[in-house]
Parts: sequence; structure tokens; C-alpha cells
Amino acid sequence: MSNAPILLTPGPLTTSARTRQAMLVDWGSWDQSFNELTASLCQQLLTIINGHASHHCVPLQGSGTFAVEAAIGTLVPRDGKVLVLINGAYGQRLAKICKVLGRAYSTFETAEDEPTTAADVDRLLRADSGITHVALIHCETSTGILNPLPEIAQVVANHGKRLIIDAMSSFGALPIDAAQVPFDALVAASGKCLEGVPGMGFVFTNKAALAAAEGNSHSLAMDLYDQFSYMAKTGQWRFTPPTHVVAALHEALLQYNEEGGLAARHQRYQDNCKALLDGMAAIGLRSFLPAAIQAPIIVTFHAPSDSRYQFKDFYERVKAKGFILYPGKLTQVETFRVGCIGCVGPDGMRAAVNAVAEVLREMEVLDI
Amino acid sequence: MSNAPILLTPGPLTTSARTRQAMLVDWGSWDQSFNELTASLCQQLLTIINGHASHHCVPLQGSGTFAVEAAIGTLVPRDGKVLVLINGAYGQRLAKICKVLGRAYSTFETAEDEPTTAADVDRLLRADSGITHVALIHCETSTGILNPLPEIAQVVANHGKRLIIDAMSSFGALPIDAAQVPFDALVAASGKCLEGVPGMGFVFTNKAALAAAEGNSHSLAMDLYDQFSYMAKTGQWRFTPPTHVVAALHEALLQYNEEGGLAARHQRYQDNCKALLDGMAAIGLRSFLPAAIQAPIIVTFHAPSDSRYQFKDFYERVKAKGFILYPGKLTQVETFRVGCIGCVGPDGMRAAVNAVAEVLREMEVLDI
Ligand SMILES: Cc1ncc(COP(=O)(O)O)c(C=O)c1O
Ligand SMILES: Cc1ncc(COP(=O)(O)O)c(C=O)c1O
Repeated sequence: MSNAPILLTPGPLTTSARTRQAMLVDWGSWDQSFNELTASLCQQLLTIINGHASHHCVPLQGSGTFAVEAAIGTLVPRDGKVLVLINGAYGQRLAKICKVLGRAYSTFETAEDEPTTAADVDRLLRADSGITHVALIHCETSTGILNPLPEIAQVVANHGKRLIIDAMSSFGALPIDAAQVPFDALVAASGKCLEGVPGMGFVFTNKAALAAAEGNSHSLAMDLYDQFSYMAKTGQWRFTPPTHVVAALHEALLQYNEEGGLAARHQRYQDNCKALLDGMAAIGLRSFLPAAIQAPIIVTFHAPSDSRYQFKDFYERVKAKGFILYPGKLTQVETFRVGCIGCVGPDGMRAAVNAVAEVLREMEVLDI
Repeated sequence: MSNAPILLTPGPLTTSARTRQAMLVDWGSWDQSFNELTASLCQQLLTIINGHASHHCVPLQGSGTFAVEAAIGTLVPRDGKVLVLINGAYGQRLAKICKVLGRAYSTFETAEDEPTTAADVDRLLRADSGITHVALIHCETSTGILNPLPEIAQVVANHGKRLIIDAMSSFGALPIDAAQVPFDALVAASGKCLEGVPGMGFVFTNKAALAAAEGNSHSLAMDLYDQFSYMAKTGQWRFTPPTHVVAALHEALLQYNEEGGLAARHQRYQDNCKALLDGMAAIGLRSFLPAAIQAPIIVTFHAPSDSRYQFKDFYERVKAKGFILYPGKLTQVETFRVGCIGCVGPDGMRAAVNAVAEVLREMEVLDI
């Protein structure tokens, strides 16, 4: 068990033994003690965004994409129109969801190393008054780029429009205050910066927006209005919850709070990111993004140009030394990615860098 | 841990310690070894229904209802029409899914203690040639009633129509042979008779039917055509899989095969059901269904008529003795339910009956 490799991937990631051990109990999904677990989970999640007054937390079975689709399907009325802001694969996915759901949408795309700006959004909203909602990726995991959420949220609110945020890979690590940043929905999942296991997402929905969302959804299973109403009435999930995943996330949240909450998690990931960037720079591996727009979540590195470098071989050799890396997701440039998140600290990151250095030597990759 | 109560509920249910321990490892979802786990899972599942030649197994994140909705949304074309056969809450849910998805449908409802017959279906298909698909619950978990699947499937095929089967609570315990029983989709989930933990479903889809299903789906996340195509190409799940749930189900399947596969599982559940029915009859508790239509999955009992009986109090007291029961789901009659499935044998069922008897004495419930 302890010999399993460290996952330097943006979820699933390495969890603590304590979190995994929380899955050794079978819970009855109808039982009061499980209802209390769910309620405690939602309360703790709301605390992280300071959202008790303004937002509900609606958990949903499935992966993060299910929760993103549920948020769009539930909160965007059938005659709404979504402006989708794109600088990577997850932004593209938002547009695809709108398309499949039959919601009108337009897209605004910048280069993968260029954040969307508030000025862009201001200009786009002036130009098209038909837009009702803006959808944004907070940290675009396909590169690790950070988009300026607070500034964009303010512009969207100034125009009287609604914001849907995919904060999958940032929630819990990067500060977001619901009392400062106006939004209708913020979406995240169990297996990312909270360091739970994958299997459920959750959507923070503005209370008034959710109350007005009855009948919007294109889906029964992904109807957040129904999911919330049923849970508010009964304390239970509408359909069978992934009980062990819920228990693991609850245990992970206890540890999150013991560690010192968001500030401590943020600091550790920043330390991880710095140890990684410094160590890789010393080997000569260059990161794709400039530091100013690099979130401390996942780092994209240019692949060595040496023809002896092959990602698959590199990956397998680094894995044999105890670390699982992540392939790149860019179409134009050859890259690979290394996550900074999970139950790992700067020493772990330095050990990963050492493994990478050794592997490049073994592979005789000289031209880095 | 070993003091946790036994779940006599139709999923989540009690799993073996070995199955839960399989969740103590964090798997990388992009890693080859995890792809092999998924492939092995799908192969083992196909073997259970003898479906390798005719069907694909498409796993899906989320609860069972997600997989049912995905099957309907993916396999019923937008201009299709579904005949929904109903004798309980899960049949009602099929109709609700068709409604929300905007698929045309009609319903045929029998009493909760009355199976749908092949003659009914024959008559209904004769009367409405617009019907393209029939949707059926195999074991209707709201009572435990068994519908005559092979006979109905034959009639549907004779009419040249397609069948979608919700076999959530029967798959793995009641025999279904894809070479004998024609169907387009059969849906089940991890946390039922296979004795895995909840968090994923799977759909066996006829190969030709799936190949013709591109673009039908109302949803991105629940598009089984996309899910399958991506997995066939890459070996990976399209969106983050519930890795720990997958590992637990894989481990549960190894034990399923070691136990003796479907025949042994079926026998154990039948023994459980008999021990339960005999024991409860000895106390005077009557089952709702006649034996001929009672599936060995879950049994509905009439609540005692004594006014000192209150389900909540009864439930808590039985729980304190180590067994979690399930509330009834009938609107007309007061009942409670006891599952026969999970990692438990006839001795466990007899112990549960003893607990029930003791509790009724403690509560001074005399008029049973
Ligand atoms: C920003 C972002 N959005 C959406 C997703 C999709 O989540 P999932 O793979 O759980 O469906 C991810 C996954 O990493 C992500 O990073
Ligand atoms: C026959 C049947 N269909 C559907 C479901 C729904 O499954 P879930 O609660 O996992 O969504 C169940 C759950 O017990 C069931 O028994």
C-alpha cells in the first residue's frame, strides 16, 4: 500500500491513509447518521467560500463534469444564452455542454497562455445584450493558467448578468469569497484540492437563482433544483449516494481544517509549486506559463527536444521510481504536466524532481 | 469497524472487508494499470450475461438512475416512443425520465403485487405501432416483485421492437442470458448484487444499437455512445472515474467468481430469503407478495397493526441490535422492507429475525 506511487496528477490524486480508511465502513444511505454526514459535509464546504448567507451547497453523484453540466442545465433557462470564456480544454468542454444541451451560446477564446481579462468580458457583454450567463474556468487545468475571477465576476455583476464558475481544480486551495465575488454557481468535486477520492461533485448555487430554476433541467439525474429540494426536505440524497466517497470527503475535510483550512492548503501547494519549478529549472526543464499567471495547482513543462525523449518511456520510468506524472494537453507544443496538489509536501516534490533528473540521465536525454 | 450494523437494504449493502480494503490504494486514472482494471471489469461483467458476442459493457459514473437515464437518452432516438411498464416506484421513475428527456412515451401500470405479463405487452404493441422501445423493471425493488423478463423480451423482439431493462437489483443474482433474452440495453450498478460499493452504473448495450446511437443523447456526461467510443479508443474513462469504487467492484467480482458465480450468489440469496420468510412467519409477520412472484432480493412485510408499532422507533431499536432495515415504499399499505442481498448468509438473516422479535417484545407490540 505505502509502495503505491505518488500521484502528481490533478485528480485523482494522492489522499491520506486516514481519508482512505474512512471507506472501510458501509453506511446505510437512508440512515440518520449518514444524513448527518452529508449535512456536515455541505456545511463545511459552504464555510470554505463564506457562502452560508447567500448560497446552497448541492452535492451530486458522478465526476466533476456531471456537476458542471448540472449547473448549466439547471441554472441557465432554456431561452438563456451563455458566453463561454475559453483558454483550454475545460473551457472547450463548457461550450460543448451548452451545445449538447441546446442552450444558445457564444465563445470567446484566447491563447492557452493568455488569461481572459475583465476588459474582454466588459466589451463582449456590451456587444451582445442577449447574453444572460457567463461561464468561466477559474484555473484552466489543461495548462495550469489562472483566470482573474474576482475582476471578471465584478464586470458580469455590473452588467446584471449571471456567472457560472468551474473551479474544479482551484476550489479549496485558491481563495474565493462568496460575499465578495458574485456568482450564481461555483462547481467543484471531491477528488481535487480537498484531497478526497473521486466520485462526487458539488455546486454552490445562489439561493435565489436556485429557487427560480424549477423545470429548467434537461435531465432528471442532473437536476440540481430537484436534488436540493429533496435533500432539504428529507436530509437524504435523491438517488443512491456514493456513500464511501462521501465518508472519505468528510474525513478529508476534517484534516483540511486541522491543517489550517484554505490558507494552509494554499501555502502548501505554493511551496510544492515553488519546489517543483525551482527543481525542474535546475535540470533545464522550462515551464510553459510565466509565473504571474501560473496557479499553484498543476504545471505544464515543455518536453525536452532531444529525440531520445519519448513521453511513454519517460512516464513509465518515473513511475517505477514512485511518481505518476500527467501527459500534456496542448495541441501545438509537446509538453507534460506535474500536479502540485494532493497529500504531498515540498520534500515529495523535490524527490519527484530527482526522479525526473535520474530518468532523463538513464534515457540519455541531453538536449533539454 | 466490525461493529458496524449489517445493512439489510437493497444497496448500499454490506460488503466484504476485502472489497472495502481494495479502496486503500489511490489509482491514477490515466495509468495503464487502471485501464487494465476497467477492461477486466467490463469483461467479467459481460461474462455474467454471456454477452461478449452481442453486447458492449459501458460503465458510467454516478448512481444507478444516471445509468438508466443514459440508456434511455442514448438508445431511444429523439423521435422514438417508449412503452413504460410500471408496477412500482422504479417503473414510475422510467416514465419520469422519458418525460424530462422529452421522449414520447406511454405507460402501462399494474398493481404493485401484479407482474406485467407478456400477453399485456403483446396487446399493447399491437395497439400502438408508434412504439419503438419497451422499458421494463426486472425486479421492482419497491416491493421485491419479479417481472417475467424472458417472456416479455420475446414478445418485444417478435414485434421488432427494442427492449431496455432496468435490472438494477437483480443483475448478478438472477440469471439473464443475452444469447437467449434479446435486449438493446440492460442496466445495473456496482452497489447491488455484485456487492461492490455504490458510485457507478453500467449498461450492457447491443453492439448494433449503440453503433447507431450517435447524437441521440440529451446530455454530454450521460452519452453512452461517446463514453464507449472514447474508452474503445483510449482504454480510459472519458471523465474522471470513481477509481476507488472501480477497484472495489473489481475486487468484489473476484470474490463473486470464487464463490461460484451467479449460481452460487443466487442460491445464497434464495437461502437468505427463505430464512427470512420462515423466521418472520414464525413471529407472525406477513410478507406482502405471494411466494411465486417474490424475487430473493428484498422482501416487503406488512407492518404490525398494533398502535404501539412505529417504524422509526422499531428501526432504531433493530439498528441498535446490529441490523439496518429499510422503510416501505407503498402508498396504500403500511410496510417495511428487508433486503436479502449483500455479504450476509442465512445465519445473519436468522439473527436479524431474532433482533426483530426481541424488539417487538420490547415495544410490547402484540397485535402483529
Ligand atoms: C477545470 C476542470 N473542469 C472540469 C474537470 C472535469 O472533471 P471530471 O474529470 O471529474 O469530470 C476538470 C478535471 O480535472 C477540471 O480540471
Ligand atoms: C430497480 C431499480 N432501479 C433503479 C434504482 C436506482 O438506483 P440509484 O438509487 O442507484 O440511482 C434502484 C435502486 O435501488 C432500483 O432498485
